Amino acid sequence: MCLPYQMSTVALTGCGSIFLLYIWYLDSLAFNFIIISESVDSFFRELYPSTYLSHVVIRRTNKIQTLLSKSKNLYKRIRQLRSNSTQQNYNHGGGILGLFGSKKDDLIDHYGKKLEDIEQNVRLRQAEASLIAEEARAAFVFFKSRYGAASAFHLQPSINPTQWITEPAPAPKDVYWPFFSESFMKQWVSKLVVIVVCILFTISFLIPVVLVQGLTNLKQLEILFPFLASILSIKFVTQIITGYLPSLILQMSLKLVPPVMGFLSSIQGYISHSDIEMSASKKVIWFTVWNVFFATVFSGSILHQLYVILDLREITSNLAVAVPAQASFFIPYVATTGWTNVLSELFQILPFISSLIKRPFTKQEDEFEAPSLAYHRDVPRILFFGLLGITYFFLAPLIIPFLLVYLCLAYIIYRNQFINVYTPKYETAGRFWPIVHDSMIFSLVLMQLIAVGSFALKKLSPASTWTLPLPVFTLLFNYYCRRRFLPIFTAYSAESLVKKDREDEKDPAAMNEFYNQLLIVYKDPALFPIHHSSSTDSLVSPLLS
Amino acid sequence: MCLPYQMSTVALTGCGSIFLLYIWYLDSLAFNFIIISESVDSFFRELYPSTYLSHVVIRRTNKIQTLLSKSKNLYKRIRQLRSNSTQQNYNHGGGILGLFGSKKDDLIDHYGKKLEDIEQNVRLRQAEASLIAEEARAAFVFFKSRYGAASAFHLQPSINPTQWITEPAPAPKDVYWPFFSESFMKQWVSKLVVIVVCILFTISFLIPVVLVQGLTNLKQLEILFPFLASILSIKFVTQIITGYLPSLILQMSLKLVPPVMGFLSSIQGYISHSDIEMSASKKVIWFTVWNVFFATVFSGSILHQLYVILDLREITSNLAVAVPAQASFFIPYVATTGWTNVLSELFQILPFISSLIKRPFTKQEDEFEAPSLAYHRDVPRILFFGLLGITYFFLAPLIIPFLLVYLCLAYIIYRNQFINVYTPKYETAGRFWPIVHDSMIFSLVLMQLIAVGSFALKKLSPASTWTLPLPVFTLLFNYYCRRRFLPIFTAYSAESLVKKDREDEKDPAAMNEFYNQLLIVYKDPALFPIHHSSSTDSLVSPLLS
Repeated sequence: MCLPYQMSTVALTGCGSIFLLYIWYLDSLAFNFIIISESVDSFFRELYPSTYLSHVVIRRTNKIQTLLSKSKNLYKRIRQLRSNSTQQNYNHGGGILGLFGSKKDDLIDHYGKKLEDIEQNVRLRQAEASLIAEEARAAFVFFKSRYGAASAFHLQPSINPTQWITEPAPAPKDVYWPFFSESFMKQWVSKLVVIVVCILFTISFLIPVVLVQGLTNLKQLEILFPFLASILSIKFVTQIITGYLPSLILQMSLKLVPPVMGFLSSIQGYISHSDIEMSASKKVIWFTVWNVFFATVFSGSILHQLYVILDLREITSNLAVAVPAQASFFIPYVATTGWTNVLSELFQILPFISSLIKRPFTKQEDEFEAPSLAYHRDVPRILFFGLLGITYFFLAPLIIPFLLVYLCLAYIIYRNQFINVYTPKYETAGRFWPIVHDSMIFSLVLMQLIAVGSFALKKLSPASTWTLPLPVFTLLFNYYCRRRFLPIFTAYSAESLVKKDREDEKDPAAMNEFYNQLLIVYKDPALFPIHHSSSTDSLVSPLLS
Repeated sequence: MCLPYQMSTVALTGCGSIFLLYIWYLDSLAFNFIIISESVDSFFRELYPSTYLSHVVIRRTNKIQTLLSKSKNLYKRIRQLRSNSTQQNYNHGGGILGLFGSKKDDLIDHYGKKLEDIEQNVRLRQAEASLIAEEARAAFVFFKSRYGAASAFHLQPSINPTQWITEPAPAPKDVYWPFFSESFMKQWVSKLVVIVVCILFTISFLIPVVLVQGLTNLKQLEILFPFLASILSIKFVTQIITGYLPSLILQMSLKLVPPVMGFLSSIQGYISHSDIEMSASKKVIWFTVWNVFFATVFSGSILHQLYVILDLREITSNLAVAVPAQASFFIPYVATTGWTNVLSELFQILPFISSLIKRPFTKQEDEFEAPSLAYHRDVPRILFFGLLGITYFFLAPLIIPFLLVYLCLAYIIYRNQFINVYTPKYETAGRFWPIVHDSMIFSLVLMQLIAVGSFALKKLSPASTWTLPLPVFTLLFNYYCRRRFLPIFTAYSAESLVKKDREDEKDPAAMNEFYNQLLIVYKDPALFPIHHSSSTDSLVSPLLS
């Protein structure tokens, strides 16, 4: 408490690596120039003399990152231009396009100079970043053993719990670098802001969608786009527009939700891609439950839904009246949205279209990166169909075959995609499973509440009374699972850590090699020297620095 | 997971002591006779070779404890009889009571033989308890350093999280021994049962009270007790009975609540007196809020209250209508119940009456034990007056002077009681403070909701709207406090533990002494040899064993 600055720390043992990550923040600007690297070193060397290994202080590299992405784009353009010109020279000699040959060289020259300027700037800033003033208040701290790292993570380091904050360090590839520039207080505030924005977004999402859907009204269209009048007079076109356009608009705007939630999660203060996607998944699930399930069931804005749901006395009977009424909507929903989604996953329609559009402008020799699955887009979608199945299977059993087809298709297709199409961006290590479990428990409780309400509505009061303990038992089961299985998802046990540590001790040479690599692996990618201009095997002199 | 038995462990670093407490339970009866002591030893020696010191397995001593309390009572009776007879011999020679002298000696002989039998039984059972079969599935595990114990506590020991369960070991005096005989599964079930019983008790408490209050109806009384008819005809008596008896009955039955909740908490599976009293405090607070505050405000059974409160849409306006109406009840309540409670605390009326009744039957030479404060009786009471003050200060400011007098009185009187009357049973180490904090936050939020409702009721809708963020800010403040201050109440920081450990290392002799004492201090009191019959300085031969 009496230390001159406030620090927060982040710590963890990775799957196979031995390290901790610390963030801290200075409380007053007066101490802004304190040497952060030294204070981390002295604090941990003092506290854990036998297990502390070393650390890497994180540096503010936002500006370098923007410069780097600029230089990357420039470099791409230059390569493209150059390969175009050589191809043209080779193919056509001095053909029609050859006319622009000299102009192209000028362009390449121009871009080359620009690129060189930027790279000079980057090198300057990289040198600057090694200065003390550019240290962010966060560091990766490495320990000699997994057990040492785990106990440093689990025990609160300093007497003031907000001084050092420890968090498990993600795997090197999984680190989300832009976050580290933020101070701890900014993180806290941005987290709050994100939660508020997320709630507002969920509440107000349907308003613009409904407005836009209103525009698909034929008369509105004719007023807005007078030139369409002739087309709109064809009956077939009007049928498609009035029948299909509103639902297309809804589906397209729902497609926007995962990226938006992903962006919101990314500014919430998470330090790894996996945490961001997990948080985004949760947001998307809640969004879908509110804006698709409850919005359809209670047919109205979210404020109206809240108004209905907040009457906890009548909630079961309200659900029992409203949910079965929408069976005729959700059964076709599974067939249309579900089946199309999973099939479009197989045919990759959007990436196909975008590559069709892009191809003329890019060269095939460009390195092709295998995409990774956006978990926060697909996991919530599948879970939502689970929710539909669980809540409707006894109200409208006709949903079951449709859902079965969907699930079988999804199993086959996603299995194929995982094996043959996607490369994982990071190891999930099963950490998405608790989200699946929670969503299933929610679906079960909702289903049981609907059952209670339905039985009461049909004057089967004994059945209704005897169904009441069911949600309680479901929640007890959930409690048991949280106790029995959840700890496995959050941290490793001492037994397994010590066992792994002892295995490592048998091979000291490999461990030393590993310790040396740590410092390189956890270096901010923005601080590596850039190679563009030198590695271009360029024919143009300015590109050789 | 593949270990032959399931274990659960309990661990902690005490304030000044270095130990861990483990409970585990065998999953199948087939392994009931496994040597528990050995498996604890091998597991922890393997896992923490450098910090593990030793352990004490807890043994099933319930039967010994009942026998011991029996023998204690017998011993007391014998001492009393003997001192009576010697006194009488001395005072009256062979007076009137001297007639019974020989009979008394016979009685002493009889009791003496009985006591000897019981003590023989106790010794037999104590010898039995050291057998393997009598080992309970729990143990205190001692570590060489505070840091070692803390990291063993914070890290989940085995891969299966329910196999070993660690809990901080309480201070030796604070241990609640009867609990340890229960297996882990029994604990879990008893915890659930206690929660259900507690809810039922809270819900149904008012029903018998109202019934009994109904009996104080004059006609009912005359029918039940015809002999009272003449007294009931006096006007003064009837006035007292009808005016005072109902509230007396309510107050007396409320006096029953803390002991009942204390009993419920004691069978819930806590291993220390402090945990039991903390849990009981929480139960009593909720009980008081429901059965005194909401029962008065919504004037009806708890089911009616629930019915009103579950309508979350109307909750603010319902509160705004009902709460101010009861100001005329709660202002006198502070003056009568509050002031009398705190003054009766000073005059210790109940202990005084009970000692008046007991005195003729006991001798003054009996060791007098200074009482300890029942936190679960007094903390909830004071917090409830805090709730009244916070919710009524702006609705009926007249409550403020009454409350001020109450708080001043309480401050002076409890200060005096703490210094001069009570001896603490255990160190609370400020652990009751989070309960106080939570109750204050609840009061604040309740007050702000009432304010929102009141403003809306008086058609001051801007005021009502601008008050709405207040509860949000209160909850944010609560969140901040939980993050900044709560960790201090739950565990020590690595920094402080390591510092203390290093101080200890400077004095190895004292540490060795301390290590040796651990085994004695954490021995079940039921297993110490009994001294009654030998230390009685008895004149009667059978008491000398």
